[in-house]
Amino acid sequence: MYRTHTCGELNESNIGQKVILAGWIQTIRDKGFVTWIDLRDRYGITQLVFDEQRTDKDLIEKARKLGREYVIQVSGTVIERSSKNPNISTGSIEILVEKLSILNESLVPPFTIEDDTDGGEEIRMKYRYLDIRRNPVKDKLIFRSKVAQLVRNYLSGEGFIEVETPVLIKSTPEGARDFVVPSRINPGQFYALPQSPQTFKQLLMVAGLDKYFQLVKCFRDEDLRADRQPEFTQIDCEMSFVEQEDVLNTFEGLTKHLLKELKGISFDKFPRMTYAEAMRRYGNDKPDVRFGMEFIELNEELQNNGFKVFDEAELVVGINVEKCASYTRKQLDELTDWVKRPQIGASGLVYIRYNEDGSIKSSVDKFYSEDQLKIVINKANAQPGDLLLLLSGSTKKVRPQLSALRMELAERLGLRNPDEYAPLWVVDFPLLEWDEDENRYLAMHHPFTSPKPEDISILDTKPGEVRANAYDLVLNGNEIGGGSVRIYNKELQGKMLSLLGFTEEDAEAQFGFLMNAFKFGAPPHAGIAFGFDRLVAILGGQEVIRDYIAFPKNNSGRDVMIDAPSYIYKEQLKELNIEIIKD
Amino acid sequence: MYRTHTCGELNESNIGQKVILAGWIQTIRDKGFVTWIDLRDRYGITQLVFDEQRTDKDLIEKARKLGREYVIQVSGTVIERSSKNPNISTGSIEILVEKLSILNESLVPPFTIEDDTDGGEEIRMKYRYLDIRRNPVKDKLIFRSKVAQLVRNYLSGEGFIEVETPVLIKSTPEGARDFVVPSRINPGQFYALPQSPQTFKQLLMVAGLDKYFQLVKCFRDEDLRADRQPEFTQIDCEMSFVEQEDVLNTFEGLTKHLLKELKGISFDKFPRMTYAEAMRRYGNDKPDVRFGMEFIELNEELQNNGFKVFDEAELVVGINVEKCASYTRKQLDELTDWVKRPQIGASGLVYIRYNEDGSIKSSVDKFYSEDQLKIVINKANAQPGDLLLLLSGSTKKVRPQLSALRMELAERLGLRNPDEYAPLWVVDFPLLEWDEDENRYLAMHHPFTSPKPEDISILDTKPGEVRANAYDLVLNGNEIGGGSVRIYNKELQGKMLSLLGFTEEDAEAQFGFLMNAFKFGAPPHAGIAFGFDRLVAILGGQEVIRDYIAFPKNNSGRDVMIDAPSYIYKEQLKELNIEIIKD
Repeated sequence: MYRTHTCGELNESNIGQKVILAGWIQTIRDKGFVTWIDLRDRYGITQLVFDEQRTDKDLIEKARKLGREYVIQVSGTVIERSSKNPNISTGSIEILVEKLSILNESLVPPFTIEDDTDGGEEIRMKYRYLDIRRNPVKDKLIFRSKVAQLVRNYLSGEGFIEVETPVLIKSTPEGARDFVVPSRINPGQFYALPQSPQTFKQLLMVAGLDKYFQLVKCFRDEDLRADRQPEFTQIDCEMSFVEQEDVLNTFEGLTKHLLKELKGISFDKFPRMTYAEAMRRYGNDKPDVRFGMEFIELNEELQNNGFKVFDEAELVVGINVEKCASYTRKQLDELTDWVKRPQIGASGLVYIRYNEDGSIKSSVDKFYSEDQLKIVINKANAQPGDLLLLLSGSTKKVRPQLSALRMELAERLGLRNPDEYAPLWVVDFPLLEWDEDENRYLAMHHPFTSPKPEDISILDTKPGEVRANAYDLVLNGNEIGGGSVRIYNKELQGKMLSLLGFTEEDAEAQFGFLMNAFKFGAPPHAGIAFGFDRLVAILGGQEVIRDYIAFPKNNSGRDVMIDAPSYIYKEQLKELNIEIIKD
Repeated sequence: MYRTHTCGELNESNIGQKVILAGWIQTIRDKGFVTWIDLRDRYGITQLVFDEQRTDKDLIEKARKLGREYVIQVSGTVIERSSKNPNISTGSIEILVEKLSILNESLVPPFTIEDDTDGGEEIRMKYRYLDIRRNPVKDKLIFRSKVAQLVRNYLSGEGFIEVETPVLIKSTPEGARDFVVPSRINPGQFYALPQSPQTFKQLLMVAGLDKYFQLVKCFRDEDLRADRQPEFTQIDCEMSFVEQEDVLNTFEGLTKHLLKELKGISFDKFPRMTYAEAMRRYGNDKPDVRFGMEFIELNEELQNNGFKVFDEAELVVGINVEKCASYTRKQLDELTDWVKRPQIGASGLVYIRYNEDGSIKSSVDKFYSEDQLKIVINKANAQPGDLLLLLSGSTKKVRPQLSALRMELAERLGLRNPDEYAPLWVVDFPLLEWDEDENRYLAMHHPFTSPKPEDISILDTKPGEVRANAYDLVLNGNEIGGGSVRIYNKELQGKMLSLLGFTEEDAEAQFGFLMNAFKFGAPPHAGIAFGFDRLVAILGGQEVIRDYIAFPKNNSGRDVMIDAPSYIYKEQLKELNIEIIKD
C-alpha cells in the first residue's frame, strides 16, 4: 500500500495517527535545525517536518538531498503545527516523518509548478504533463469531467439514450474539409472522420430511438485560427416527434441544471430573440446581453443633411457608451484607429460627447446643429456624461464592425463579468446565405435544416429571405449550442440539396443513404449540438477553450508534446496504397 | 405538440382520457366492420381502433389505406378493450381514434420489423435504421447506454476523473497496424488513430491525476475476423500510487456493481488464478469456469507403456465429460473429425468410456490394461457413465486443442448458461512471448508492463520465464478486461524496449515523449482497460458484439449502409499531398 491518506485530507482530527503519504515535493525549506517539505498530490498539500530534536539524523540528511518534483513516500505521525496556515485544509497539522522512500527522482522542471508559473505557452504545451500538475490546469480538467457527468446524467434522466456513432465514416465535401483515412483493405478508398454525427443521429430517429445523445469527438480540417482545435467535443442530441419549442425547453432545462449545479444560479425562462432582431439590436447573432449598449439606428435622424459619409451609407448606427464623455481626444483617436484596423475594417468613427454640463461636442459638428444632435441623444436615451459612437456603411459590413467595437468597449469597461451568466435563445435564422466566392447559396446551419413552413412558398422566388426553424443558444456572447428542426420529407430534402447546387448524382452519392432512409417512414425530428469545450470553458468563467482540453493541438494542428503529425514508414504507405506527391 | 403520451404508457387508469399518440404502424387488421392498428414507438405498442358504429366513415377509409411503417399521429379517447392482451402493459386499453394525420409514408420495408425477422444479416445491415426498429436490436442499444452510465457514475463516485485523450495522435508501429490520417497543413506527415490511449493515460499519471477513466473509441487496422471491429470502445483506466492488489479490488468493485445492478447477482470475492494454473487446468488463459471439465494431465499414468503416440508426446492430457459414456461410435468419430479440422489441428482423439455398469472401453484398449485405465479414471474422479477424452502432443499445441474441445462440448451439453456469471482474475502473465515469424520477443501485454520485481534478475538470462504484473478479468470464458502494473522507471523502460528489439533511435522516435516524462517524477502506476463492446454483450447474455453496436462494419471493414470507405475527389487528394499508387 502506497498511502493511507491523500495529501488533502488530514486535519486536526487526525492528530496522533500514523499515516503513509505519497506525492511530489512542492518545496523544501531547510532552516538548519528543521526542514519542512510541502508534499503535493491531486488533492492538496501536506507539510512534512524533519527536525534535529525528533528526527533521525540520516533521515534528515536524506530529506535535504531531495529536489523539487521528486516522488516520495513517507510514514509518520500527524502532529499539530505550531504555526498554522488557515488557507489550506491541512494547514493545522504536519507529519513528523519517520520513514522516507524515494519512489522516483526528477530533473528540475523547465518551469515552476505553481499557480502562477514562469513557463510560456509553448514550453507548457511541450511538457503538458507537468503543466497539468499545476492547480489551475488540473482543476479545469476535473471541472470538465464533472460537467460531462452532469450532462450525461441529466439527459439519461430525461430518457435520452447514449448511442456511439461511428468515427470511420464517409467523406462529404459540403461544409468544412474532412480528415480522411486511407483504407488498406479497400485500396484507393478512404474513410472520413465525422465533422458531426449529423446524418447518423437523423438515421437513429428514423430507427425509432426518439431521444439520442452523445458526447462525441468531431473533426474539422480547417486552417486553424486561435482557439480552434482540429478535434473537438460536442454534446450531440436529437429528438423525434418534437417541434422547435420542445427542443428549446429540453435544452433550456439542461442548461439551467448546469448553471444551478455548477454556479448556484437559478433561471426562470431564458429570453428569446429572432436572428433579425439580434442583428438589428446588437449587430451580432450571438450577442452578449450581460450589458446593454444596444444599437441605435440613425438613418432618419442623420441622413440627407449634407454629410456625404452618412448620406451615402446604407446604415448609420451608433452605440451609447455610458459615462465615457470624458474620453480624451487621444482615447477617441485610438478607438478610431482600432475600428480602422484591417480586422475590423471601418472607414472612420464618429463621436458625440454629451458632456456632464449638458453641452454637446461631436466630430461632425459642422454638419449638424446642436438640436439635431440632441434628437440623436434623446433617441439613444443618453445621459449627461455619456458618449455616442457612430459607424456607417453597408448594413452587412457596419453591423459586425460596430458589434466588435461594442464588445471591445465592454471588455475595457469591465462589463463582461465572468461571474454573471446571461443566456439567450436566438431563433429564426435565415435558411441560406449567399456565398460570394462560390456564387451560390450555402446552408446557414446545414443542408438538413427545415425552412419555416410559412416560408416554403418563397423558396424558389426569394431563397435568401426564407427563414429556418433553426436556433442557437447563446451564453455571454458565445454560441454554446445550435440546432434546427430537420427536413424529414424526401422531396423537400431533394429540393434543398438542389438549391445548394448539388447535382442529383452528387446528392445521391453523398446523402443517398439518408434520402433512402426517408422513404421508410421518417418521423418529424429536430436536434441540437453544444460545443462541449466552449461550454465547459464558459461555465468555468473563461473563454479560452485550450485550457480545458488535456492535450490540445497548437495553431498548426500539431501536438508538440508527442510531436504529431509525423512521417510514417514507407512500408505503411505502400500497404495503404498511397504515396506522397513529390514537388 | 406531436403526442401527449408514448405508445408504452397508457393503461386502465387512463380510460376516458383524450390523448394524442404518434408512431409507426406495426400491423393493420381489417375485419370489415372494425379495423385495428397496432401503433409502435420506442416505448411499446398501443392498439388503435376504428369501427363502423363509432368512427367517421372517411376516417375509416383513410385508416384502411395506410401501410406498414407509415408514421402517423392520432387523437382519440382511451377505452377499455373487450379482448385484453395480458402480455403487454397497454393490453387492457385501446384508442378510439377521432383524428388521424399521416406524418410520413413508407415503402414496404425490405424485411419484417418483428422480433423474429425474415431479414438476413446483410440486408439488415444495409437498412440498419430499420433493423434498429426491432425490439431485440433497440433493447441492446438501450442496454448499452445504461451500462455506460453505470460505469461512469461508479468510477466518478470512486474519484476517477474522465479525461478525453486525443484521437489524432502519432503512429507507433508496435502492436497492430495503425489507421493513419494525412495532414494537409503538414504535408507528407500523418496522424494516427489510437489503438488505445495507453501513453496518454500514463502521462496523465505523471501529470498527477491519480485516477483516470474514459470510455473511448480505439482503432485497429487488422484483417478482420468475425466479430472484430476496426473501431471499438474501451473503458480505459489508470491509477497512481497503487499496487496490483488495489487495481484488482477497484475493478472487481466496478464489475460487482454492474452484475448487481444489471443482473441482480451479488458476489463476494472473485476467484483468482495464475496464468500458469489457468493453462494447466483449462489450457486457456481465459477459462470459462461456469463448468468444470478440468484438464487431467496423464503423462505419468499413460507414458512408457508402448503406445507410441503418447510416449512421444510432451503432454498427455484429458477431460472428463460427465454422463457421456453413452456416446455412440458415430458421435465419437464426429468429435474426432472435429478436433482434426485444420482450425483445431489435433492428430487424433482417444476416448475412455466408463460405462454405467462399471466396465471400461477405450480406443487404446490394446495398449493399456483395465487396471491402468482404472487409475486414469480415478485420477479424473470419473463416475460410471462418464466419458474421458484425451489428446496428446506438444504442450503448446495440445492445450489450446483440448481447450477448444472442452468449450465445444460445454456448448453442446448446454453447460454455458447465459444467465450464470462466473468471473475470474487471471494473474501473473508472462512478460514476453516469443514470435516465431519475427524471431524476437513481443510484449505479451504491451511494452509498458512491469516485470514482477522478483523476476527482474532473470530478465537477461531467461526472458521467456519472466512473469509480469499483468492481469485479466475473465467473465464466462471471455476476457473482458486486462491491464498491468506499469514500468515507471526510465532505465527499466529503456531496457524493456531494447529487449523488444527497438533500437535506441526507434525507441526515442516513438516513445521519446513518454521516456522524457519519466525523467520528471513519474509515480508508480497501474491500469486496466475493458473491452466495452464485449462487456456489454456478455452482460446482455450474448457473445456477439456486433448486435450491441449501432452501426457496425462488416468483415471487410465496410459500412454497407453509408457505403464507406469510398473514393474521394482528386482535389482532396491533391490538397493532402498524396496520390493513389497505380498498379
